[in-house]
Amino acid sequence: MSQEWAKTVVSGKEQTTTLQFYFHDIQSGKSPTAVRVAQPIQPDRKTTTEFGVLLMADDPLTIGPDPNSKIVGRAQGLYGSACQDELSLVMALSYTFSDGKYKDSSISIMGRNSASKPVREMPVVGGTGLFRMARGLL
Amino acid sequence: MSQEWAKTVVSGKEQTTTLQFYFHDIQSGKSPTAVRVAQPIQPDRKTTTEFGVLLMADDPLTIGPDPNSKIVGRAQGLYGSACQDELSLVMALSYTFSDGKYKDSSISIMGRNSASKPVREMPVVGGTGLFRMARGLL
Amino acid sequence: MSQEWAKTVVSGKEQTTTLQFYFHDIQSGKSPTAVRVAQPIQPDRKTTTEFGVLLMADDPLTIGPDPNSKIVGRAQGLYGSACQDELSLVMALSYTFSDGKYKDSSISIMGRNSASKPVREMPVVGGTGLFRMARGLL
Repeated sequence: MSQEWAKTVVSGKEQTTTLQFYFHDIQSGKSPTAVRVAQPIQPDRKTTTEFGVLLMADDPLTIGPDPNSKIVGRAQGLYGSACQDELSLVMALSYTFSDGKYKDSSISIMGRNSASKPVREMPVVGGTGLFRMARGLL
Repeated sequence: MSQEWAKTVVSGKEQTTTLQFYFHDIQSGKSPTAVRVAQPIQPDRKTTTEFGVLLMADDPLTIGPDPNSKIVGRAQGLYGSACQDELSLVMALSYTFSDGKYKDSSISIMGRNSASKPVREMPVVGGTGLFRMARGLL
Repeated sequence: MSQEWAKTVVSGKEQTTTLQFYFHDIQSGKSPTAVRVAQPIQPDRKTTTEFGVLLMADDPLTIGPDPNSKIVGRAQGLYGSACQDELSLVMALSYTFSDGKYKDSSISIMGRNSASKPVREMPVVGGTGLFRMARGLL
């Protein structure tokens, strides 16, 4: 019996699907999931918020908060520090799922992740497979 | 009394909101709002259009054309020179507003900004807060 | 008489347009259409999939598979290697068309291009001109 991480509600012509998963981003150690690929070219432009630092990520998505729990997909793409005076990231990521009926379906996210807020939302800007024409929030 | 920079028209199930603001992008001087983070790795690939140059921006949005007028939000994210023979930028930016009822709401823009044209449009690909599920143009 | 590469079907309030074109991406030689602009900053982070390598592209779109056939547009923007264990790209591209009634109209694509699969789809996240409010797949 597989654990439930996805729930779909059909209403009219559009469907609402709620996905719950945990995102693991590790920038250091022997097996980082995100690596720094760019940073300000003029060194004096470096700030306390690391404004201008850009990372490529290939982060596992798991069914539970434990990083060793079942992997249901991967979040892949770029994110960077985009604010000069507080920690805030702009992300362009593709979430591709690998579990159950959503296997090989994906959603694309593009927007700001305000690291200083406890609850954040980012726009879902599109999708493929079962998430064709997707709009929504993460 | 606050100045009007946003107007909403409700029509059927979707709302149309028109926002008017001014974008300030400063790449030089003591307080740049955008910094160069990447460029072609092979130096002989540099072109007159600076093809391949990538900048991270944290640009103020103001209510009037004067950069010292009231700030109503910030445009944050990446843009780069994406054309080899004319000046044209591809931008992936989050516009987060800080004024009035749109405070903490955002829209995400992804597309081409053809710097050689007097009027340009770029696609709004998503949004958060009051701009959830947003589609439109900038 | 111009060759057909675009077909539009009107159904209800939304239109479906099918575009067929060929994408040419050349990373080497005297006239590359894509140049490397970033890569992992720590050299030991390099992988066999070139994880973290980022390119800026200005790629011609042609009416036929022959790269010398008529150009109908250009795909401009960033793509990078976003997977540590297989070849998979995340792309953020603007496709601007230059032919017929779609001249100066554009669509924006953001998502994952799984290079190991024969048929791939990427989300269309927005558009301009005749493709205003576009959603769809590439």
